[in-house]
Amino acid sequence: MSAALEAIEVKKRGGGLPEDMIRSVVAGYAAGEVPDYQMSALLMAIFTRGMVYEETLALTAAMADSGGRYSFPECVDKHSTGGIGDKISLTSLPIAAACGAPVAKLSGRGLGQTGGTVDKLEAIPGFTCDLSESSFRRQVEEVGLAIVEAGEVAPADKEIYALRDVTGTVDSLPLIGSSIVSKKAATGAGHLLYDVKCGSGAFMKTAAEARELAELLVRLSESLGIRASALITGMAEPLGAAVGNALELRESLALLRGEPVPEDLDHEARLVAARLLYLKGISDAEAAVDRAISSGAAYEKLREFVAAQGGEADALESLAVSEAVREVVAPEGGYVAGFDALSIGQAALVLGAGRERKTDAVDHSVGVEALVKVGEEIEAGQPVARLYGERRAEEAERLVKEALSLSSGKVEAPTAILDSL
Amino acid sequence: MSAALEAIEVKKRGGGLPEDMIRSVVAGYAAGEVPDYQMSALLMAIFTRGMVYEETLALTAAMADSGGRYSFPECVDKHSTGGIGDKISLTSLPIAAACGAPVAKLSGRGLGQTGGTVDKLEAIPGFTCDLSESSFRRQVEEVGLAIVEAGEVAPADKEIYALRDVTGTVDSLPLIGSSIVSKKAATGAGHLLYDVKCGSGAFMKTAAEARELAELLVRLSESLGIRASALITGMAEPLGAAVGNALELRESLALLRGEPVPEDLDHEARLVAARLLYLKGISDAEAAVDRAISSGAAYEKLREFVAAQGGEADALESLAVSEAVREVVAPEGGYVAGFDALSIGQAALVLGAGRERKTDAVDHSVGVEALVKVGEEIEAGQPVARLYGERRAEEAERLVKEALSLSSGKVEAPTAILDSL
Repeated sequence: MSAALEAIEVKKRGGGLPEDMIRSVVAGYAAGEVPDYQMSALLMAIFTRGMVYEETLALTAAMADSGGRYSFPECVDKHSTGGIGDKISLTSLPIAAACGAPVAKLSGRGLGQTGGTVDKLEAIPGFTCDLSESSFRRQVEEVGLAIVEAGEVAPADKEIYALRDVTGTVDSLPLIGSSIVSKKAATGAGHLLYDVKCGSGAFMKTAAEARELAELLVRLSESLGIRASALITGMAEPLGAAVGNALELRESLALLRGEPVPEDLDHEARLVAARLLYLKGISDAEAAVDRAISSGAAYEKLREFVAAQGGEADALESLAVSEAVREVVAPEGGYVAGFDALSIGQAALVLGAGRERKTDAVDHSVGVEALVKVGEEIEAGQPVARLYGERRAEEAERLVKEALSLSSGKVEAPTAILDSL
Repeated sequence: MSAALEAIEVKKRGGGLPEDMIRSVVAGYAAGEVPDYQMSALLMAIFTRGMVYEETLALTAAMADSGGRYSFPECVDKHSTGGIGDKISLTSLPIAAACGAPVAKLSGRGLGQTGGTVDKLEAIPGFTCDLSESSFRRQVEEVGLAIVEAGEVAPADKEIYALRDVTGTVDSLPLIGSSIVSKKAATGAGHLLYDVKCGSGAFMKTAAEARELAELLVRLSESLGIRASALITGMAEPLGAAVGNALELRESLALLRGEPVPEDLDHEARLVAARLLYLKGISDAEAAVDRAISSGAAYEKLREFVAAQGGEADALESLAVSEAVREVVAPEGGYVAGFDALSIGQAALVLGAGRERKTDAVDHSVGVEALVKVGEEIEAGQPVARLYGERRAEEAERLVKEALSLSSGKVEAPTAILDSL
């Protein structure tokens, strides 16, 4: 009996998969020897029967080993499970680098409402994430901050993920956890902060689910020799104001220059940077973060990093955003009870900021700027969002209007950081 | 979302699949629109979460409707879940036909240790099961007994079964039940007896499992307008003595002629024939069965049937069996505690009686004759089996030796009929 059929027989009855069996199946699938229909049967058996920690760890390690592995034991990195207006990588990483924690990040383009970190950075003329391994490594040493597009890291995970996507086996905790950590382990940073988003605009809908995932991510990472911790952060409304590539970059630059940005973004970016420094053993991290911003060192680090990767650092001051701007106004007055992250993300997507298919091109200049936050009191006719871009703008406007819910009674501002470990 | 993905989402959480969703998925899979990897994920979700009766019935009906359907409401048929030396179709059906219950049977070749009923009949020179629908129907009317090779009956079941076979999703009660009954419903006989085998040589290993399957088969059949009942019969040792195509046919002829055959076979063949008559509403069926055999009517019916399907009826008296015969003797004396059906079936298979792959040819002349029954007292050196055939004969001999277990204390003869409903 093949390893895949054997694994199916064991798992369909709720048994535990031995490590060598997991390795055989993962290697066999990556080599095209295990057919899709067997892998999907096994994935569904895992979905319904679950996996104990040791199995999840074995799967993570097997996928991490399925392609080339990097090693940056001195470096820090962060991973976000993805949200709307999430610009924490663009802000916290230059801050951490400016404070002496070197950053080696492999990033993706992402599929979804807005681009990934690579897409956002490509709003800068000339900027590229297509670095050779040697120039990536040199830049980490010289600049202390480098971001490369994740290529063939953990190829088995990539193939298994594509199959999960079309077989209803995405939303399985052990499969989600092993997928995330396998890529991070192959990337090789020695210190990792996980930012698990929770809410309508995120994959995890409840704080309890998010905490369970966060615990698994940290435990798997520690088992693989990575110092790790995690934050669980709210994603009911967009993080900060900007949603869209150049818009998000612009807001990130404002934060790094110490200019005013929405409180939730400012707080989370500083917190993540400080947590990265603590992982590296740097004490009094909050003060170091504040200094890096107020002294201009964090912003200078970003410019240095952009220039090192071919970008025109001076262009940062004048990033192109669409001139087709329309304002969405409140239909009546009241307290903002919700400004749904998922709908606003959809609005940015229809404007062209993200990808519906992997092959779609991203328009860096379009997106949405949310002008109000949950808990705020607003008046009828007050602008609540600004839309940039012409494509399907009517639909985007409708989506943003639907995202807004108002209350006649006072509403508490939500807590941005829900939990941490 | 496609019907297949929708069905996966429902079933993976243990929900119930609506009938129209099941029909869409089955039709889509048969049409090649639902990919294997989605069907296998759904099958595994069904395996682990189960299906309630209504879902199983809907699946059965959808598969029955996936190809042409026949209708023989006046006819009887039987279905066996398969065992070693199972010649109940070859014996009970001519008896029932001789007693006035017309038989319209669609049969398969089977994959496994020995051939299916079609293979066994093909041991007769000239005999064919390749009849057109019109000659099949005419023969049912004129002879009262016709057997045709099941072609494109329930094609969706055929494809789904092939996928189950390579994805670890065979041994699921609702999937087994719907597969069996879908073919029988498409075949169209109005009266059905299920013979659910139980023991080492059968698919169901315990009487409780076998009873559960029998109940499901009868209930599904009745829901689809078929009068049905079931027997649960033992399959720890071969049924009768002969295992192999011509050998089994020869033993069947002996039974029909009223000559002595092992008690278990004689009893079961008569019981099945009587149960078929009761399903048709014929009273005092046991006496009718006895008369059909003692008068020669049953044997005559078989000859008539063989001739109608192109076989040389006179050749029945002298069927060719291999002249390469070797006897296996008991290594010591004692009571026969077991004569494992599965091992003896394997011995017949290696001699060439069955198929390991669908494309294998079957050798009609080879097989095993078991000369002892469980409970019998035997002496050292007494022949316990006769092997016919040369291919891998050493291996076959080893398998038969392994099949035999002896006890110094008295052993009860097993009960052939374990349960009925």
